[in-house]
Amino acid sequence: MNAPLDPEQARRTEELYAPLTRSLRRLVDVTIRSEAGDADVKRAHRLIDEAAELLGGRLHPEPHPVRTTTEGRFLTWGNVAIGTRNAIAPPLDLRRDETGRVTTDVALGSAYEGPAGHVHGGICALLLDHILGATAHRPGKPAVTGTLTIRYVAPTRLGPLHVEAWVDRDTESKTFACGHITDENGVVSVEAEGVFIRPKAKS
Amino acid sequence: MNAPLDPEQARRTEELYAPLTRSLRRLVDVTIRSEAGDADVKRAHRLIDEAAELLGGRLHPEPHPVRTTTEGRFLTWGNVAIGTRNAIAPPLDLRRDETGRVTTDVALGSAYEGPAGHVHGGICALLLDHILGATAHRPGKPAVTGTLTIRYVAPTRLGPLHVEAWVDRDTESKTFACGHITDENGVVSVEAEGVFIRPKAKS
Repeated sequence: MNAPLDPEQARRTEELYAPLTRSLRRLVDVTIRSEAGDADVKRAHRLIDEAAELLGGRLHPEPHPVRTTTEGRFLTWGNVAIGTRNAIAPPLDLRRDETGRVTTDVALGSAYEGPAGHVHGGICALLLDHILGATAHRPGKPAVTGTLTIRYVAPTRLGPLHVEAWVDRDTESKTFACGHITDENGVVSVEAEGVFIRPKAKS
Repeated sequence: MNAPLDPEQARRTEELYAPLTRSLRRLVDVTIRSEAGDADVKRAHRLIDEAAELLGGRLHPEPHPVRTTTEGRFLTWGNVAIGTRNAIAPPLDLRRDETGRVTTDVALGSAYEGPAGHVHGGICALLLDHILGATAHRPGKPAVTGTLTIRYVAPTRLGPLHVEAWVDRDTESKTFACGHITDENGVVSVEAEGVFIRPKAKS
């Protein structure tokens, strides 16, 4: 692991990369939907390579960087669900209420497709794994998934979705959580149950 | 839906976009790992916007394009697991043996991260949902996920992975499939069971 980042330096880096990553999400989307002419596609390809050269010219020394701040915060920039520097992440913006319920609203486009016009079942699982897991995190004690069961009760169309999760019951080391995905009209398409484990601190 | 594409035109379009999409996957990866200076990051951002303008200038008329060929083949260009025009897709390259077993080898980098240095549990679910589902597809009868149960038995490190799935039992309309993810040494980190449904043809 590298030297921890000063929090102010971390904030500045995030401010620099977040807008670039938003542009990159748009580029991922239009790459699927484009009907541009051959010359424009080839020109776009060259620009993409040029951008990758600029960013790739100086890389973090680790192939899979783990970045922390001097305050001990783990920087989730690369997280595939919430990462501000990860163009794969929609990204999810989680809200947590005083009862521990976690919710998010997200609009998924063509880049998350499985069956024609619909969200891939595995992406539904990703959304639910992440949000159910979020109900189980405690300060300084992140939780990992033990088991996850997903029931697909109706197709999930691409477009705006609401995802929520809540704690069913809790023990010292485990959280049993439930959740679902609904469409704009509140109709449930996917339900989930999960057991999340907070690994014991090494003594 | 738009007019179906001539197969030769579909092949040419795919040949044009597949290398661009490979470059775009590299750009997604280095955006997470870069330690480039501010000026280079800003220049890369402008190039990304320029590429998005070129590709976004002429888009498919549907927000979530469904493309077929005149031979009736559904083009999975945007599929988030296997799509050749989707930079989110690793993409998976599935092999199927004569017994119906489906396998794939894939190397996942920082863009698929959950816990530091490890694959996100939801991405493991995506890999397994897709590959288990592939055991259930029959010619002209795609299968959709009914239920999926995932057991996380050990952390899955970023890097090279092997994923496989097989049919446990089969009925006219349902396939019960099993599968797992292993590392380079054959150690299982995630196990899955799923029920996949082939919707009845509308009569």
